[in-house]
Amino acid sequence: MAFTERLRAAWTTSSSLVCVGLDPDPSRFPTAVGRDAGAIEAFCRTIVDATGDLVCAFKPQIAYFAAHGAESALERICEHIRRNHPQVVLILDAKRGDIGDTAEMYAREAFDRYGADAVTVNPWLGTDSLEPFFARRDRGVFVLCRTSNHGSAELQAVRDASGDALYETVARRAATDWAKRASVGLVVGATQPDELRRVREIVGDLPLLVPGVGAQGGSAAEVVRHGATRDGTGLVVNSSRAVLYASSGDDYANAARRAVLELREELNAASRR
Amino acid sequence: MAFTERLRAAWTTSSSLVCVGLDPDPSRFPTAVGRDAGAIEAFCRTIVDATGDLVCAFKPQIAYFAAHGAESALERICEHIRRNHPQVVLILDAKRGDIGDTAEMYAREAFDRYGADAVTVNPWLGTDSLEPFFARRDRGVFVLCRTSNHGSAELQAVRDASGDALYETVARRAATDWAKRASVGLVVGATQPDELRRVREIVGDLPLLVPGVGAQGGSAAEVVRHGATRDGTGLVVNSSRAVLYASSGDDYANAARRAVLELREELNAASRR
Repeated sequence: MAFTERLRAAWTTSSSLVCVGLDPDPSRFPTAVGRDAGAIEAFCRTIVDATGDLVCAFKPQIAYFAAHGAESALERICEHIRRNHPQVVLILDAKRGDIGDTAEMYAREAFDRYGADAVTVNPWLGTDSLEPFFARRDRGVFVLCRTSNHGSAELQAVRDASGDALYETVARRAATDWAKRASVGLVVGATQPDELRRVREIVGDLPLLVPGVGAQGGSAAEVVRHGATRDGTGLVVNSSRAVLYASSGDDYANAARRAVLELREELNAASRR
Repeated sequence: MAFTERLRAAWTTSSSLVCVGLDPDPSRFPTAVGRDAGAIEAFCRTIVDATGDLVCAFKPQIAYFAAHGAESALERICEHIRRNHPQVVLILDAKRGDIGDTAEMYAREAFDRYGADAVTVNPWLGTDSLEPFFARRDRGVFVLCRTSNHGSAELQAVRDASGDALYETVARRAATDWAKRASVGLVVGATQPDELRRVREIVGDLPLLVPGVGAQGGSAAEVVRHGATRDGTGLVVNSSRAVLYASSGDDYANAARRAVLELREELNAASRR
């Protein structure tokens, strides 16, 4: 099944736009989890199993594994998700961007080694740098369009001679050229509601991966209002810290589940309005 | 010693602007090296030891290791370089770009886990995404400015309302704001000689990491003519495939050495003119 169909099925099955971001930081783990070599894997598996029926996607952030030399834990977590939560889409948040053979190696890393359904990539190097990802026709590619951090305007919001902001140029290219050849989506931060609406205008029904609700200050209701498609989907709304660290006690799995339930309901309520 | 001084010392000691890129592709290894688990490490160590006295830098490309699950081999290769070729600068080519805590994790990956002297990063997410790298005052940060691939113009060469191309904006920010706070350099492809000259005009003596000579078609003499500083340095000129795969026979180490010697001489001859 191609990525777009998998994602659509995941929205339906879970009745959820929520994506849980797996950004494991051992310094924030509950005491019971510990901080030894196996803690990252155990913590992520617990979070995954506590929330798997409530989400459309899981999004491991590879940097958190790489900083700790925990790639094999990430491999096993990805396998666990694919095996035990096959209805949930697996997005590797890697933000890769390189050229030619090197980009091909990154595509292998995401799709073959970790078995991700989709990967996040950086468009700064141009369309040819994205081709090795696009070539995997059954997988998805989320391109960084307008990110949630305050410095994102420096390049992404620069206007060209015709008055278009660069993030609009990226969105337009995604909707036309790229979408013809690949299951492409865009990353647009929840902290930029006007830009989110603008991107949705440009890209029609393409899926948008939206970080920045919760800890970063974006509003879930605003995200739905500005970013949802007409059928109330089209969004993969990520929450990481607010879920993973909802409690620092032994009840962290239940607390994570409650945090996801709340966010799901908040998004669904906004979607019904 | 801060990165800029380390690099200056490396140029002097080696009389070389050459950087050897470590992009190990087992499918291209000489038969004698084999393709088993240890082959990547053995191949890279041989190349490193055959060329270590002739180069100012080694640049492992992390994607080639990640695609093969060979992070521990990369750790050992980096340690081998630091221990046995301490005068050579170690640049991790990772092209990372992310925000906040995630960017901090990538800084740990490059500088703590692999012990790199410098890392390549992507500026698309803005200055705040680069801060965790800048904060490591003794390390270097090479920001992608104008890359060597044909699609690089799509975003990097877009002109803003005042007529500046985005790569010029990146170069200007590097030379002013960023250089005050970090040992910053830029990545500029050898395939764009005019842009290389333009960047050099903007950034004064900042170091430029230049991929794209050899296999990608850039001219070494042109790179020096357009990119060198007045003292004939300022450049880290990368060659990967032309060195690593100079021979597919048992003489691959000698062939790699000869390829580096030739490139070094070509660059030095152009620098003397």
